[in-house]
Amino acid sequence: MERGPTQDGGGGGELRPAGPGPASGSPGLPVAAVLPAGGCGERLGGPTPKQFCPVLGRPLISYTLQALQRVNWIKDIVVAVTSENMDTMMAIIQRYQHQRVTLVEAGATRHQSIFNGLKALAGDHPHSKLRTPTVVIIHDAVRPFVEEDVLVKVVTAAKDHGAAGAIRPLVSTVISPSADGYLDQSLDRSRHRASEMPQAFLFDVIYRAYCQCSEHDMEFGTECLHLALKYCQTKAKLVEGPPDLWKVTYRRDLYAMESIIKDKISQQICVVMNTKEDAGCIGFLQGLLKKELEVKGTSVTLCPNGRDLQKIFLGECCNFVCINVMNADFHQTTELLDGLRSRAPSFFYPVAVVSVHFLDSQNVSFSERMKALMEMKDFAKEVKNRNVFLYGVLISFTQMEHLRPWEGR
Amino acid sequence: MERGPTQDGGGGGELRPAGPGPASGSPGLPVAAVLPAGGCGERLGGPTPKQFCPVLGRPLISYTLQALQRVNWIKDIVVAVTSENMDTMMAIIQRYQHQRVTLVEAGATRHQSIFNGLKALAGDHPHSKLRTPTVVIIHDAVRPFVEEDVLVKVVTAAKDHGAAGAIRPLVSTVISPSADGYLDQSLDRSRHRASEMPQAFLFDVIYRAYCQCSEHDMEFGTECLHLALKYCQTKAKLVEGPPDLWKVTYRRDLYAMESIIKDKISQQICVVMNTKEDAGCIGFLQGLLKKELEVKGTSVTLCPNGRDLQKIFLGECCNFVCINVMNADFHQTTELLDGLRSRAPSFFYPVAVVSVHFLDSQNVSFSERMKALMEMKDFAKEVKNRNVFLYGVLISFTQMEHLRPWEGR
Repeated sequence: MERGPTQDGGGGGELRPAGPGPASGSPGLPVAAVLPAGGCGERLGGPTPKQFCPVLGRPLISYTLQALQRVNWIKDIVVAVTSENMDTMMAIIQRYQHQRVTLVEAGATRHQSIFNGLKALAGDHPHSKLRTPTVVIIHDAVRPFVEEDVLVKVVTAAKDHGAAGAIRPLVSTVISPSADGYLDQSLDRSRHRASEMPQAFLFDVIYRAYCQCSEHDMEFGTECLHLALKYCQTKAKLVEGPPDLWKVTYRRDLYAMESIIKDKISQQICVVMNTKEDAGCIGFLQGLLKKELEVKGTSVTLCPNGRDLQKIFLGECCNFVCINVMNADFHQTTELLDGLRSRAPSFFYPVAVVSVHFLDSQNVSFSERMKALMEMKDFAKEVKNRNVFLYGVLISFTQMEHLRPWEGR
Repeated sequence: MERGPTQDGGGGGELRPAGPGPASGSPGLPVAAVLPAGGCGERLGGPTPKQFCPVLGRPLISYTLQALQRVNWIKDIVVAVTSENMDTMMAIIQRYQHQRVTLVEAGATRHQSIFNGLKALAGDHPHSKLRTPTVVIIHDAVRPFVEEDVLVKVVTAAKDHGAAGAIRPLVSTVISPSADGYLDQSLDRSRHRASEMPQAFLFDVIYRAYCQCSEHDMEFGTECLHLALKYCQTKAKLVEGPPDLWKVTYRRDLYAMESIIKDKISQQICVVMNTKEDAGCIGFLQGLLKKELEVKGTSVTLCPNGRDLQKIFLGECCNFVCINVMNADFHQTTELLDGLRSRAPSFFYPVAVVSVHFLDSQNVSFSERMKALMEMKDFAKEVKNRNVFLYGVLISFTQMEHLRPWEGR
């Protein structure tokens, strides 16, 4: 069973929050990703497989898909799910508008699920329309915080060395127990690493490995790097990954994940304005925000309605600076808030909106400015009930002598 | 530098919430614990060492000490802290009324800190008044959820085998990289385990091991079990531990910890009443609560003021059922709430109080009952501002025909 790739909305360049560093750039070769998601999450407890557990109201796997689809050089994402979860997965893809995703049926083990994903990319399946990639990324559905940076590193290393994988230092010492439960040996922690995901492979290498793979390896093995080594003599290049790559395993990890998402959300600000005239002003504002508020990323959209904004609502950005040049009314802010209201998924966490109004103090009287201020205060009170914290700033820009912050909380 | 053991308040048997299973019982021999807490928590980021990071307003290490001191057969708890954190640690002990704690100065490495703790127990220090234990537990300050059950297991195993330690299955595959960063070997996950804490040793074994320990081991080693094996040929018995033993390492772990504490708190209920006459009623209520509310533990205090309640405030219990037999006023509930108000540490999380009033419907008129109900509603509104959710139940007990729940949220 295979469901074809979901359509990209097309048109309107995707609006992506800027990462903390310079853009990593495409590795310049065809890349796809395989995501085994057939696990039952027994270590988590509870009936829902962990990849479908809600985190801030959204299923875990949706965050992982979002992280992968943000990387535009990953052309296909093949997800292996069990037949009983196929409809759930389709609904998630539709609701969160995931793109470039193809579903295949999961196997009985993790390796079999991955192999099924690879088969779809190899064109072995009669209805498969996917293009076979040069390099394939294998990732876990339950590692939602994978950044482009580490993906570029493993893909580039796989291109050069045939296989590559992310590693992390060990948190605990690893020991080998004897059959009767005594300490036999404790491993030198400095000489060992935890093998994490993502991993990447030349497609030919990993596909060949799986085709030759013994039933025992298919059933009990966990490590794709090991298969590449055993069946293709390919020694994987190891790449140091960031701590947030960790695998969501226990219930506590869901809470940890929630906290990380909240942190990320609070450090993303989107600047909205409907004119291109003051691009310089936006740059200044972005610099200021990053400096003063420890904002990690800012995005700009020049059109607060339509497709661009829709993408923001589905993305990580939940704080907005809405700029109104030469305008005391807040029609534009209202439009943004109405847009936000119609997207329920954003509303599991509070949203902050700053409505900035540049006013010419020589043309707009003091009483008019006060009136605008009072109106905004009332409006802020109203939207607070919708979990939106609206802040307003009036800036008299002729003399720039007058900065009057107020807040609606 | 060594600070003497903090005094136990003495008198008034300690009120402990019942665990989920039967009480594990004392291993019946002198036991002490050593807690190295000299780390700087570099993996966490931020200037505060992780053992002092606040979780729901209370430093992490205080939770760990609380977990150990609840186990009354651990006679001494020796904590190794750096000289610059000595005052911080003293303040924590005082504020949270930790008992049986002795402070020693931490060394430059974890092993040196543990050794300093052992020296204090060995009586090597001229001012030491601690009794040398038969078995010593070594635990981490940053593993706050250690239960009596696993402590009994490691101590008993240490008594029988000389050394014992908690283990957990590996979450990630462990690999050994070559010097130039390639995969050399991936370890069979089923044959290896993560070595966790607590560990326990016959005091003579671990002390002898540390006395012989090479400088290299003292500086670079992490594993006490390894020292017992290397220097005393003692093969540790390995004991499977629960998942909550994990070590708080990254910032996300603090959030995970917070969520676990909240879960635990929400599943503990304390029943308060000032008469012994209705013990049967309490038993019935406890049974009902456990069945209907998935309450994991209940405690009973018969005297809502004084020492017993003070211990509750410092403990895990933050939800109360306050029973008033033959009484429409809520003097007793008020007293409990006043007691709660004076203890700031409890107030980082919401507290639920259920005020239960058994009233004889033949002697108390309907209008009197309605009056009591309205008064409680007002009172509930008032205390809600203090983060207390007060619920009241009036039970007409003569015919038991009338159950009227109301809530103040």
